[in-house]
Amino acid sequence: MRKIAIGVMGAGENATVIDCTSAYELGKAIAQQGWVLLTGGRNVGVMDAASRGAKSANGLTVGILPGSDRHDASEAVDIAIATGMGNARNNINVLSSDVIITCGTGAGTISEIALALKANKPVILLNSEIESQNFWQKLSVNNIYFVSSVAAAIATVKTLIL
Amino acid sequence: MRKIAIGVMGAGENATVIDCTSAYELGKAIAQQGWVLLTGGRNVGVMDAASRGAKSANGLTVGILPGSDRHDASEAVDIAIATGMGNARNNINVLSSDVIITCGTGAGTISEIALALKANKPVILLNSEIESQNFWQKLSVNNIYFVSSVAAAIATVKTLIL
Amino acid sequence: MRKIAIGVMGAGENATVIDCTSAYELGKAIAQQGWVLLTGGRNVGVMDAASRGAKSANGLTVGILPGSDRHDASEAVDIAIATGMGNARNNINVLSSDVIITCGTGAGTISEIALALKANKPVILLNSEIESQNFWQKLSVNNIYFVSSVAAAIATVKTLIL
Amino acid sequence: MRKIAIGVMGAGENATVIDCTSAYELGKAIAQQGWVLLTGGRNVGVMDAASRGAKSANGLTVGILPGSDRHDASEAVDIAIATGMGNARNNINVLSSDVIITCGTGAGTISEIALALKANKPVILLNSEIESQNFWQKLSVNNIYFVSSVAAAIATVKTLIL
Repeated sequence: MRKIAIGVMGAGENATVIDCTSAYELGKAIAQQGWVLLTGGRNVGVMDAASRGAKSANGLTVGILPGSDRHDASEAVDIAIATGMGNARNNINVLSSDVIITCGTGAGTISEIALALKANKPVILLNSEIESQNFWQKLSVNNIYFVSSVAAAIATVKTLIL
Repeated sequence: MRKIAIGVMGAGENATVIDCTSAYELGKAIAQQGWVLLTGGRNVGVMDAASRGAKSANGLTVGILPGSDRHDASEAVDIAIATGMGNARNNINVLSSDVIITCGTGAGTISEIALALKANKPVILLNSEIESQNFWQKLSVNNIYFVSSVAAAIATVKTLIL
Repeated sequence: MRKIAIGVMGAGENATVIDCTSAYELGKAIAQQGWVLLTGGRNVGVMDAASRGAKSANGLTVGILPGSDRHDASEAVDIAIATGMGNARNNINVLSSDVIITCGTGAGTISEIALALKANKPVILLNSEIESQNFWQKLSVNNIYFVSSVAAAIATVKTLIL
Repeated sequence: MRKIAIGVMGAGENATVIDCTSAYELGKAIAQQGWVLLTGGRNVGVMDAASRGAKSANGLTVGILPGSDRHDASEAVDIAIATGMGNARNNINVLSSDVIITCGTGAGTISEIALALKANKPVILLNSEIESQNFWQKLSVNNIYFVSSVAAAIATVKTLIL
């Protein structure tokens, strides 16, 4: 029986300390709900922090890697999917999640928000800036949500997956 | 900590009853070893039978779908990865498994054996015909194994993942 | 000897008349320079208009289709590449162009701008709005250019491909 | 107006001298018919030889590269498509050709024959061995052709694209 999978997306090498702290809390909260955490799988930034957070609460973690070698995955990833297709894998991240939550920003994350809207998947932006909110709302009034706490992100996911 | 993932590949709509019976037993035996089962995820043939076998032993099942809609997954798939990339996803099946076991044959399965050899992944052919064995052995003497029982397949996997 | 390929990206079904008019002129100007035009290949919107413009000047047109059937290509596409991988093909559009020019906006186009920046490819935004310019400039000061005419787009490409 | 594209597939680093000689003649004959040559694009083996043959007759050459850098293409490739998706690009080679001709064998080539049969694309095997012919014919009686000269390959293509 298919498990609910929540994607957490954000920067890798360029992630800020604040983004990683939020990602850890998000991963932990997702695991506490019994949901699977899905990330880009690499051993850095938001992907790694969210995965470690989920494991701290005994969650199940899936990582969709850009490369072809599963040894590049974060140690906190249980199921490492090696796509070998670089950033084109961002589309798989989106299609394989019930809801996507972004934590901070960066070019890769923006591509994932855009691909999610294209695929009619709901996206929750955690702690986004007002300019960013204006940019996205101009494009689509549906499927995009702005929250300013991990608790609000989880509450929004609950309304979306009912 | 990354879990061992064993891929089971075989026909979909055209799978024989014998292939599906073997696939069910393979899935069950993989789960009993504590390994994750990885398949092509669809709701037919070898993919579905192997996933049901793994669930009968409380295993964890991953399905790498060709389509973009996770509702197409077998009901016995826990983690449904929607690639939206058709048969190009066969390469992801291979890259994401520690060892691949094939159960019966068909064009899709042949592509997976070939992609596995290309990626230096070990492949075990269960119940293959002698002509097929000759064909593959001519190509590569390494990384390809022929077995005639589920027990022998599992024993071979054990020697490969040490 | 590899030909220069200029990607023109923009909306499909939702493209405005202005976007399509600009795309036609862009395609024509690209062909007049002797460059290959590369688009998303479908028979609608900016992709189709740019391809028709290029053919009006006897250019060579390449279309990278999301689907697996080349009959879905615009009639103005000479070389139809069928990826069968949906919007994940947006990454191929970007990697296969020397410079990307966007014409109008939409979720798909935003994903392409983001994937281009991720891949260190130069992107020229034609007739973009000030909010959009602020959004992108905040992310990256390099590799992104804003122009307000087809002539300026072509002039910018020339400085980039030297 | 979409041009006819004929895919020529075969080994890279491991190609034999005979395979490369045949590939050169094939590429030349394809160009002489006014068809576009499509290959895997790399600077070695059958891909490179076929592309050089086509250019010797002023043909148009397309290369679908596994990597993300177009500088890895053969110098005889006019249109270099960088997929960045490794061997998963073999499916794009197949989907983007009207007919596929293989020249020699290897794991990558076998994956392309299998993916072509899966996609209902006709495949012509040039100079294949009898064991190989038996293997494929057992799988599919349609869409697969065996020829022993470049002239016969071209004649077969003509019957297929009418």
